[in-house]
Amino acid sequence: MTSATLSRATTRLTVPEGSLYGLGNLPYGVYSVDGSEPRVATRLGDVVVDLALLLEDDIFASPSLNAFMAQGHERWADVRSSLRAALEGEVPATAVHQLDEVRLHLPVEVADYVDFYASEHHAANLGRLFRPQNPDPLTPNWKHLPIGYHGRAGTIVVSGTDVVRPSGQRKGPDDATPVFGPSTRLDIEAELAFVVGTGTPLSTPITVEDAERHLFGVALFNDWSARDLQAWEYVPLGPHLGKSFASTMAPWVVPMLALQEAKVPTPRQEPAPLPYLAAAEPWGLDLDLAVSWNGEVVSRPPYREMYWSPAQMLAHQTVNGASARTGDVFASGTISGPAKDSRGAFIELTWGGAEPVQVGGEVRTFLEDGDEVVITASAPGADGVRIGFGEARGRIVPARQT
Amino acid sequence: MTSATLSRATTRLTVPEGSLYGLGNLPYGVYSVDGSEPRVATRLGDVVVDLALLLEDDIFASPSLNAFMAQGHERWADVRSSLRAALEGEVPATAVHQLDEVRLHLPVEVADYVDFYASEHHAANLGRLFRPQNPDPLTPNWKHLPIGYHGRAGTIVVSGTDVVRPSGQRKGPDDATPVFGPSTRLDIEAELAFVVGTGTPLSTPITVEDAERHLFGVALFNDWSARDLQAWEYVPLGPHLGKSFASTMAPWVVPMLALQEAKVPTPRQEPAPLPYLAAAEPWGLDLDLAVSWNGEVVSRPPYREMYWSPAQMLAHQTVNGASARTGDVFASGTISGPAKDSRGAFIELTWGGAEPVQVGGEVRTFLEDGDEVVITASAPGADGVRIGFGEARGRIVPARQT
Repeated sequence: MTSATLSRATTRLTVPEGSLYGLGNLPYGVYSVDGSEPRVATRLGDVVVDLALLLEDDIFASPSLNAFMAQGHERWADVRSSLRAALEGEVPATAVHQLDEVRLHLPVEVADYVDFYASEHHAANLGRLFRPQNPDPLTPNWKHLPIGYHGRAGTIVVSGTDVVRPSGQRKGPDDATPVFGPSTRLDIEAELAFVVGTGTPLSTPITVEDAERHLFGVALFNDWSARDLQAWEYVPLGPHLGKSFASTMAPWVVPMLALQEAKVPTPRQEPAPLPYLAAAEPWGLDLDLAVSWNGEVVSRPPYREMYWSPAQMLAHQTVNGASARTGDVFASGTISGPAKDSRGAFIELTWGGAEPVQVGGEVRTFLEDGDEVVITASAPGADGVRIGFGEARGRIVPARQT
Repeated sequence: MTSATLSRATTRLTVPEGSLYGLGNLPYGVYSVDGSEPRVATRLGDVVVDLALLLEDDIFASPSLNAFMAQGHERWADVRSSLRAALEGEVPATAVHQLDEVRLHLPVEVADYVDFYASEHHAANLGRLFRPQNPDPLTPNWKHLPIGYHGRAGTIVVSGTDVVRPSGQRKGPDDATPVFGPSTRLDIEAELAFVVGTGTPLSTPITVEDAERHLFGVALFNDWSARDLQAWEYVPLGPHLGKSFASTMAPWVVPMLALQEAKVPTPRQEPAPLPYLAAAEPWGLDLDLAVSWNGEVVSRPPYREMYWSPAQMLAHQTVNGASARTGDVFASGTISGPAKDSRGAFIELTWGGAEPVQVGGEVRTFLEDGDEVVITASAPGADGVRIGFGEARGRIVPARQT
């Protein structure tokens, strides 16, 4: 058989019963095989399909989704239709790889990264833990604006990347002076990251109504947090080294176009937001997340409980005239529900370490070296078939020697 | 005369007496003429010299300094030597343009941007204004670590770009609820931006001693700040919309290699910093800045008064294992000296608006539409010739209609 024949060989793909990666999902990622140049792919069942080969379009022969995302919302819809049609027909065999035979890369070249704080349960829990002297656990601004801050774009890593325990300064309430060393309160924050597909120039805010046309998709996200570093550094200008050492992003970006069935109203917003944040029907997403700690599910954060919607977060970010760019990523902040076993950060789950949890027969408060955390999620899709989001996985390795 | 002859025509350049842009400076910028593709240049006296043509090296036929910066410290030194030698000889006439005939662009493709808070005078003044209830104007962490936070890389604009007055939420102490509208307390922060030339991978901190090998250069910077937006939003996660609408960077990056004569000890650091921030001889920079408000110099901030050194800021940023990238920019925070007329932000200069200043016969507290601010600086150079930094200029234009 010649290579010319080989390259024309085709195959038909089938989706395993119960798969979260059916034709209603079609997430976007970036893969390589055996050290090849990274290229854009989708996932169907347990295979990865090269989009440049499938659709004969070189925009996908690219190491990130950015070039495709920059083409805009109508193009995203067109490609999604073409993709579905192509996957239902004969697929070039060279385009298909088994999931476990490829390497998955960070799917987005991240421009600016903002982390929000959109869960009322999380914000209230952190308020009780960090600022117990305050009668109201929420700061006075919390229900008026989606609080957010910029984080480090350059340290967003793809799922599976080991996380080296960060070192830094901390000062306990009884310490006379700060000490330096590996973090002793290393934590997670189970979040969703929203990927901006098309931006706007300076002084052109994105309205709540227009936000969805700019939002390309959603990825699972773990905003690893060194609570001891954060507590000492964060007044008055916010978190820095307590967060900037690493954030883990899932390799698959699920398009907003796949999530139409997952839209649900946000919790009631009272007091009513200012007009620029008002939406006729503010929408959240009905994702069920699961946080596994060393293989044991310790929490099931419900995204539907998030107070501020992604559209409100994007509108807020740009209302001051800040431009947005293809590849901007903003994350939701920790997703915590009202129940203890729905809290998306260990500082809440263990109440600042005061209430340890059992994990695989061992007692845990914060993360120990060798611990692994995996965040997964699913959401309602079309035709009653659920949609998956891959995973955001990371293992803690010991602090480097200093 | 044929074009072939023309392209071989050469000229000898002379530097006007007293110029701040002599052979001891040689800053790097990016220019275009008549809509041509932007390319890297240096400035000598009042002319701009194209480096790709001068040095016959295509790395400079690039719209930013990043590719050159990524080549590393030894290459920076080599190019500086070559550049000086070339400029002392016959220079291709096609490489030379009058400064007022070119357009200058943002010189750096900015990766991550961090803003520090390294002036003790500024931090103490802001503490007195923002947190008057606290007996100590400095937060307890201030003398132990250089406080910093990430800002928006995508809204760093080149000098000369108009700044549209930002809108957002504010809530005065007597307001029952927040209101939305154009900022009424629009301010500047006169700063220096440090440009990272070469980074490090994850988990490879840059030491204080090594920092200078990673630092490419320095540019004037104005971190425009909407104080009313900032005051309402910044607790607990730091500034966001109060800063993210625009930051102005000078078009010229003065290489660290030009600033050897400008190195001076920082103010005494007491208590002694933790070992990772300790330096045998922590060095600051002896820059004299000037802030002009509608053509009148209202402040002369002295960079030599800054408490934390650039090397300490870079070491701190990476000590937790955060990687650094070519094009990372970190700014010093407002440069304020001890004297009232050396304060680098108008909120300090006018004491929160309580002590207006006279500007060109008019009374000012914060910025009004049409106001223009220009920040300039000079520093000691070799052979007693001072070095200039171009300017960070911006004019306030009215808020967009909402």
